[in-house]
Amino acid sequence: MKKYFSERYDELVPYVPGEQPQDRSYVKLNTNESPFPPSSSVTEAVRLESQKLNLYSDPESLELRKQFAAVFGVDKDEVIMVNGSDEVLNFAFMAFADEKRPLAFPDITYGFYPVFAKLNRIPYTEIPVKDDLSIDVNDYIGIYKTVVIANPNAPTGLFLSLDSIEKIVASNPNNVVIVDEAYIDFGGQSAISLIRKYDNLLVTGTFSKSRSMAGARLGFGIANKELIGNLNTIRYSTNPYNVNRMTSAAGIAALRDNDYYMDNCKTIIANRAWTTDALSALGFEVLDSKANFVFARTDKLSGEQLYLNLKENGVLVRHFKLDRIKDYNRITIGTLDQMKTLIEKTKLILEGK
Amino acid sequence: MKKYFSERYDELVPYVPGEQPQDRSYVKLNTNESPFPPSSSVTEAVRLESQKLNLYSDPESLELRKQFAAVFGVDKDEVIMVNGSDEVLNFAFMAFADEKRPLAFPDITYGFYPVFAKLNRIPYTEIPVKDDLSIDVNDYIGIYKTVVIANPNAPTGLFLSLDSIEKIVASNPNNVVIVDEAYIDFGGQSAISLIRKYDNLLVTGTFSKSRSMAGARLGFGIANKELIGNLNTIRYSTNPYNVNRMTSAAGIAALRDNDYYMDNCKTIIANRAWTTDALSALGFEVLDSKANFVFARTDKLSGEQLYLNLKENGVLVRHFKLDRIKDYNRITIGTLDQMKTLIEKTKLILEGK
Repeated sequence: MKKYFSERYDELVPYVPGEQPQDRSYVKLNTNESPFPPSSSVTEAVRLESQKLNLYSDPESLELRKQFAAVFGVDKDEVIMVNGSDEVLNFAFMAFADEKRPLAFPDITYGFYPVFAKLNRIPYTEIPVKDDLSIDVNDYIGIYKTVVIANPNAPTGLFLSLDSIEKIVASNPNNVVIVDEAYIDFGGQSAISLIRKYDNLLVTGTFSKSRSMAGARLGFGIANKELIGNLNTIRYSTNPYNVNRMTSAAGIAALRDNDYYMDNCKTIIANRAWTTDALSALGFEVLDSKANFVFARTDKLSGEQLYLNLKENGVLVRHFKLDRIKDYNRITIGTLDQMKTLIEKTKLILEGK
Repeated sequence: MKKYFSERYDELVPYVPGEQPQDRSYVKLNTNESPFPPSSSVTEAVRLESQKLNLYSDPESLELRKQFAAVFGVDKDEVIMVNGSDEVLNFAFMAFADEKRPLAFPDITYGFYPVFAKLNRIPYTEIPVKDDLSIDVNDYIGIYKTVVIANPNAPTGLFLSLDSIEKIVASNPNNVVIVDEAYIDFGGQSAISLIRKYDNLLVTGTFSKSRSMAGARLGFGIANKELIGNLNTIRYSTNPYNVNRMTSAAGIAALRDNDYYMDNCKTIIANRAWTTDALSALGFEVLDSKANFVFARTDKLSGEQLYLNLKENGVLVRHFKLDRIKDYNRITIGTLDQMKTLIEKTKLILEGK
């Protein structure tokens, strides 16, 4: 019913998050969460902080930004901390794109980009990826648009080299290029090293995947101080206390335990290789992923049928009903035990055909 | 620098939160926090939940809404939970106001309203409050605008009767009326009882004040299911996982401990009466507050000078450099000990003149 709803949003179709069914226990490989719990110092930091919940959090997230800057090798004023990286993406779309600076992003990518664009009524172009689902860098050279690239891309997992990213940034000097590195810690190479060379580069990231904090909501943006200042203008006009005390404390502790999380990433990378081999042995085509998921299809079963059969068998993966990728499923890389269950169930399903 | 910043926001002036100085310890009476810590079951719930941070929170906040609905006497589908009530206010401005449905709110009220209006480029009218800083209900009858009323109002603490609120809602049937009840638990009467009678009423609230959760960021909106559905369309297009696991767990535990928090409110109300009397005895004019703060002025000292002198003496209050209220200070009601310190320091300052 739209009696009171602004017609500004007539064409808005909200994002649909991966399902979180409560009906039974699943091997949950559908939302790219980490299978590893937060480190014990994170839970201890949260416990201590929870006793001070009656007091507002620091709207500047100063201690968190200092710790972050030390680990990421940037200045604290080159960082903005947010309530999940979706928030900084929305802020960036607001700040750096409009009718005069339309957006461009791949047709196959994170499904939230067109939603943010419509929400903010920003014109956008979806540039088709190649038949192999990879991004053609040449499509983004000198296009005079605000470019958004997920790198590695979702849901393909395919990675663009830092060299390619630099070409896109350098060739669009009048527009900001947003590189969404949600999955960078699983084998990619970050563009953070370029933020002082290019004043039009914004790198975004999240603690949700590699740092086991999906349930805490902590994202970040890294860019030169001017772009970060622009994003803070939006943040202070939206929700200055966006990062709560507990999440901030968890983030600081996680950064101190960086080795634990980077070791977990290595395990995921190893499990990804194992899963890729096992799926290939079953006849799947598996894209070359640098993320904590693989994107795979088989000609023995439709993508949707495999998704449904796996769900019946207690394994959740993510299927997208989009023409170009409907044959595929996106499978989060969990523990080796979880991946063995996936392979075992998949094998039974294929044999049952 | 605005090289890349959208000109859409040329006129945007961000909200300035109350200062959170780190240089020394203050008797902090400047941001309307509760002086009481969260209940022990809140910290225990947070501790348990923090072990599952690797998993996303429920984007529907189902358990939280169920518990909330039980305590507030509404249906779970009449509720939206958000990352602090600023978020639901921003969502509501987006959803229910635009060029065709301009906004109206008092000139003296929560300073974020004009910021949200400018952020979303919604025309707005600031309706002057009366000389005694109270709202004239007649100014809002049948004005065919989307009305926003903080009740009790901030920073005055003055309360509009439920009868007055109902008149405003009933006389503007083509617009949503947003009643911001951030401070309702300190002696006011909530408009929640009217949401089934009027399909154009949205009541917003927060766990920041009466429920000692400013640092957790938990706000809510209550309205009929259609308005809540509209707000969820915005939420799912912005940040579906806006409420993190720890905050959700804290909220559920706080609702179970409702008596503890309502008892704390009674203490605040008693301390407010004590403070009002003590300030009056010192010659202050103190507005009749139904919030967890008082708004007071003296002709012995300018508002700014009192604020600065109190700060020097280790007591933080909030001063607004706005013409109509620059003589006043907004003083949060804390523990009786804190209020005794305030009075003692104020007395010394006045005598020192």
